[in-house]
Amino acid sequence: MAKSGIEGDLQARNVLSSINGVAPLIMEVSAGLTGRWTGGHSSLDSMCSHALVPSGKMFRPILVLESALAVGGDARVVLPAAMGAESGHVASLVHDDIIDDDEIRRGKPSVQHQFGVDNAIVAGDALIFDLFLSLAECRKTGAADSRIVAAFDVVARRGIELCRGQIMEAEICERMDFDREAYLTMAGLKTASLFKGACECGALLGGGDDAMVEALSRYAENLGIAFQIHDDLLSYTRETGVMGKPDTSDVRNGRLTLPVILAYELGDSMDRLAITDGLSGEGDPTANRQALITILERTGALAGTERLAAHYSRQAVDALAGLPVTLSRERLARFAEEAIDRDR
Amino acid sequence: MAKSGIEGDLQARNVLSSINGVAPLIMEVSAGLTGRWTGGHSSLDSMCSHALVPSGKMFRPILVLESALAVGGDARVVLPAAMGAESGHVASLVHDDIIDDDEIRRGKPSVQHQFGVDNAIVAGDALIFDLFLSLAECRKTGAADSRIVAAFDVVARRGIELCRGQIMEAEICERMDFDREAYLTMAGLKTASLFKGACECGALLGGGDDAMVEALSRYAENLGIAFQIHDDLLSYTRETGVMGKPDTSDVRNGRLTLPVILAYELGDSMDRLAITDGLSGEGDPTANRQALITILERTGALAGTERLAAHYSRQAVDALAGLPVTLSRERLARFAEEAIDRDR
Repeated sequence: MAKSGIEGDLQARNVLSSINGVAPLIMEVSAGLTGRWTGGHSSLDSMCSHALVPSGKMFRPILVLESALAVGGDARVVLPAAMGAESGHVASLVHDDIIDDDEIRRGKPSVQHQFGVDNAIVAGDALIFDLFLSLAECRKTGAADSRIVAAFDVVARRGIELCRGQIMEAEICERMDFDREAYLTMAGLKTASLFKGACECGALLGGGDDAMVEALSRYAENLGIAFQIHDDLLSYTRETGVMGKPDTSDVRNGRLTLPVILAYELGDSMDRLAITDGLSGEGDPTANRQALITILERTGALAGTERLAAHYSRQAVDALAGLPVTLSRERLARFAEEAIDRDR
Repeated sequence: MAKSGIEGDLQARNVLSSINGVAPLIMEVSAGLTGRWTGGHSSLDSMCSHALVPSGKMFRPILVLESALAVGGDARVVLPAAMGAESGHVASLVHDDIIDDDEIRRGKPSVQHQFGVDNAIVAGDALIFDLFLSLAECRKTGAADSRIVAAFDVVARRGIELCRGQIMEAEICERMDFDREAYLTMAGLKTASLFKGACECGALLGGGDDAMVEALSRYAENLGIAFQIHDDLLSYTRETGVMGKPDTSDVRNGRLTLPVILAYELGDSMDRLAITDGLSGEGDPTANRQALITILERTGALAGTERLAAHYSRQAVDALAGLPVTLSRERLARFAEEAIDRDR
């Protein structure tokens, strides 16, 4: 089921062709994360390793590295920050899986399922601390102190925004609030914030000026929203085996994602009733998911969701216009296109 | 029940007379924390405010401020770090209360009891991020960037140690491991690590040299262990109303604290059976606690625990010998004496 370290990494890397530019460095990030939690004397190491290895798609480390390159910086200087970006992301997954009661993550048992909720809370905390420890390690790779402090500042801010997004998502779902604007604000906080943190941090540590940091921040904001919308689509268009996480999670947790919000906008009163029922958390999740898919297809909500993902992806590409023409800029543009054309 | 902000603060400050030296600054820290989570647009603010206000005993902010002063630094420079130390500490309380299923904290409902477990996980995360955001704010108060990065490094390391301590405590309790050495290692990680982080961070940001940072680190290590031992004592010698947290928590959670470990060492086979039974989590927690108290008193475990707390308190004072003679050094010494002479 679970792939071994390198095999899993290779599989993950094949998801997006655009990362080839920094592929050797991503190999180093992956190896660094694999070896990071092996020297300790507590089972905290097993838990953090379980969460981090084998690596996922490594989107956030890629963004750190490419952002540093896109502002004319040295990707090696930001390597520790790239590792930290993955730790911070995985921390949020570990805590999310507790909240969503998800038993599978990246094709194997989630941390809470394997080690229990209490341990998973602590392991997630440790990974947040390690995000910041990794950032501090950029001293050793030659980043200027002033740049490191600036990176700390943006990453901490984006972390708090992530938390705001998580709370907001819970509120939207509890209120059964089929509100497109609220959803987009939430996606900007919940998903785009860590993308922004990764790009801003890479650009700052890479020595970028304010305009470059701002351009990459806008890129990440739009990329993150496009990414979340596509993720929401996958829950209704791909199965557990393909995604590596439960395909019924969104239905079981009554998530008001963009596909169901659009279906609610486009559907008639019968559709609305069926959508509300399907997301109530009652009944068989697989049957509820299938019923929702029928409505999403008939109302054109799936197609509409795809169009919105494409819109944000294009806006992400447009934001890159403020950067010098480099191979990294090209790869970031391709990345934004491929982020809405993936299976997992 | 719960005191209003300032009233609660005053009550908390009266716990230890030694803080009078930095009392006006602690007022500022308290006011800063009260106002910190008011501008946001999500209920995350309510949750974080609920956790932070009214303030607790403010031990960690005091340590940050006094450590800066003890190395000849400016306490105003480390004010944001002092706020961060409290946020980090409260983050660990919020997550601890989920793990221990504690419904009362600082005399009012714990965050998980008031807002639910899911929200409490996210609120704790936000407070960890805010610890680091606060540290970054020392740029504005005039700390050198190199010192801020060093402070980030030690605080992140100590945060991971805290997590190791929490996992280790769970393992000790699960194994019913009445091992004094394991307990002391665990207390060093779980409690002393944040004390160390506070002292090291204050000393670093205050411009202290390596020897001073090291002296304050040893002070904090011993203070933290003394503090934890005294906390363990309070669970068997004070009631809920005095402590502001449930007096049956340690019994209910089967905590192998120093008093019960000593009683297990000193008692006969009948005592050992009764101790194991009392900590099994079965039966009425209040009755179990009372039965344990009887054994703790009869075996001399309470007196033995007090002696060990005093030993670590003295070692903390001794560690201060490496620092220049200042009023802050005197206050830190008094602090170590009073830390094992408090009711809550």
